[in-house]
Amino acid sequence: MNIRIGISGYGNLGRGVECAIRQNADMELAAVFTRRDPKQVSVLTKTASVCHVSEAAEWKDKIDVMILCGGSATDLPTQTPEFAKLFNVVDSFDTHANIPKHFENVDSAAKESGKVGIISVGWDPGMFSLNRMYASAILPNGRDYTFWGKGVSQGHSDAIRRIEGVKDARQYTIPVETALESVREGKNPALSTREKHTRECYVVLEEGADAAKVEQEIKTMPNYFADYDTTVHFISEEELEREHSGIPHGGFVLRSGKTGWEEENNHLIEYRLKLDSNPEFTASVIVAYARAACRLYREGQTGAKTVFDIPPAYLSAKDGAALRAEML
Amino acid sequence: MNIRIGISGYGNLGRGVECAIRQNADMELAAVFTRRDPKQVSVLTKTASVCHVSEAAEWKDKIDVMILCGGSATDLPTQTPEFAKLFNVVDSFDTHANIPKHFENVDSAAKESGKVGIISVGWDPGMFSLNRMYASAILPNGRDYTFWGKGVSQGHSDAIRRIEGVKDARQYTIPVETALESVREGKNPALSTREKHTRECYVVLEEGADAAKVEQEIKTMPNYFADYDTTVHFISEEELEREHSGIPHGGFVLRSGKTGWEEENNHLIEYRLKLDSNPEFTASVIVAYARAACRLYREGQTGAKTVFDIPPAYLSAKDGAALRAEML
Repeated sequence: MNIRIGISGYGNLGRGVECAIRQNADMELAAVFTRRDPKQVSVLTKTASVCHVSEAAEWKDKIDVMILCGGSATDLPTQTPEFAKLFNVVDSFDTHANIPKHFENVDSAAKESGKVGIISVGWDPGMFSLNRMYASAILPNGRDYTFWGKGVSQGHSDAIRRIEGVKDARQYTIPVETALESVREGKNPALSTREKHTRECYVVLEEGADAAKVEQEIKTMPNYFADYDTTVHFISEEELEREHSGIPHGGFVLRSGKTGWEEENNHLIEYRLKLDSNPEFTASVIVAYARAACRLYREGQTGAKTVFDIPPAYLSAKDGAALRAEML
Repeated sequence: MNIRIGISGYGNLGRGVECAIRQNADMELAAVFTRRDPKQVSVLTKTASVCHVSEAAEWKDKIDVMILCGGSATDLPTQTPEFAKLFNVVDSFDTHANIPKHFENVDSAAKESGKVGIISVGWDPGMFSLNRMYASAILPNGRDYTFWGKGVSQGHSDAIRRIEGVKDARQYTIPVETALESVREGKNPALSTREKHTRECYVVLEEGADAAKVEQEIKTMPNYFADYDTTVHFISEEELEREHSGIPHGGFVLRSGKTGWEEENNHLIEYRLKLDSNPEFTASVIVAYARAACRLYREGQTGAKTVFDIPPAYLSAKDGAALRAEML
């Protein structure tokens, strides 16, 4: 099977997709679509075309799956249904509250065009969702916990950058180890926001800015920091660049549940990710689901799907017999 | 949806299935089938019938899914294909090397009868296999590790019990923590059998038995113990009963892999189970897949399936919209 992939949006996630395609022998990157001037965008894959996003329709028959690498706030809500009129698509839409609406929009577009659209692929939503779902189906009498980190939160870093006097910033979300341990021990704790995660901020100040005022503003920021134990470190621009330029992330999904006639036995299911690069890992998940999108389409399926709807084997380059022999 | 379940074989696993059914509101236990005299078998579920296994055919239209709780060595290779002629079936066939053959046998029986047969369900094979497969599809350039334990190995305990002078025994398989840590750190170690697990044995001697001889015989037993660092503790029958009557198990599936254009970033995917009761957890997985078997059958699908073939959503009592709203 040869799968021709298109990438729409060439930021960190788009480049991650490009790297992931290179690791999968059954795939090739056909073209990258950008809103910028294509002449100003140089991609890593020598054989790939770079096109303006307005030219996408011309690629209708030359691309098997279009991977949408835009943002969830403004890009994907309109882009995914639009592209689903022309292509099989995969996106990483991650605004949890709007997933049902997004699913409907993509579903009707993809059903009309006879294409497949897989939405909300990545690790959360994505692999974390899958693990929550499997675990809760296996242990109906149990409790779920999700911890994030240690990792960079883009949204929280941006929130700090918007404060007056801040030149640059990086925010890490860190799970509280003792909380994690009490879940692992089967204690089924009720954990407040503050008890689950701490927030650590590395901030570069503008010249002459008031550090105490900035720190106060960060620590009391509603929704973002006020409910957490937050630490603020002021560092130089050089240190930020040297020590905090990576985009690591990860986290833990746990389910603790009971079985037995008297529900006397405890079980713990734990799924953990430790990622050097959040966008590259997200991209790797997306690319595996692009394979699934292509297969589902070739089988004649249409409409929107999520990770819950897709047989695991569809992600793998190996066939059923090989999977049974080597991996079961 | 109401799913009527039959259980064939009422040992630890069968009783585990009975307990799991009780936790799932859309299921009921219709009947237990045994090779013993049904009058001598009392089950926990007051509403369930107890029948001799030879009467199973009479239940053809009164059971939606038959769960086969026999052993992989001699029961399941013949039972699963036989029962698949009459029922949708789920088994926990775990002789890895014979899975392809078993799959074929169940597939042809189930295709002929128009039923669904899900084989090799549990945690290994089962949830561990799923995690190996998902992780290798996501990180094609990586390395897999499976560690088992801490847990009771029935096969190893039985092997000790067959030694002359041994009255009873319990064997624990224990993962080596330093090996696990080196995998977590992304070092991709090449690990020998001895470096991955240790074996701990609790042995009750017959009166007058030669402890030194028994210990020597255990530690040098080929395949079972010779390749491991093995510790032998001689204890009283009372202590064995008091401290070692549980059937805990679990383990770890890890994949460490690289992404990036120069494959410069490391990622770790870790799945862990910590189980108080191996048979009850296995049973809980099987019962979730019984739901899937019933749905697939009602959709008109037939033949043998494994965990790789089944969309995750089919395991859950919630519908697609609820899963997307609550779990994605």
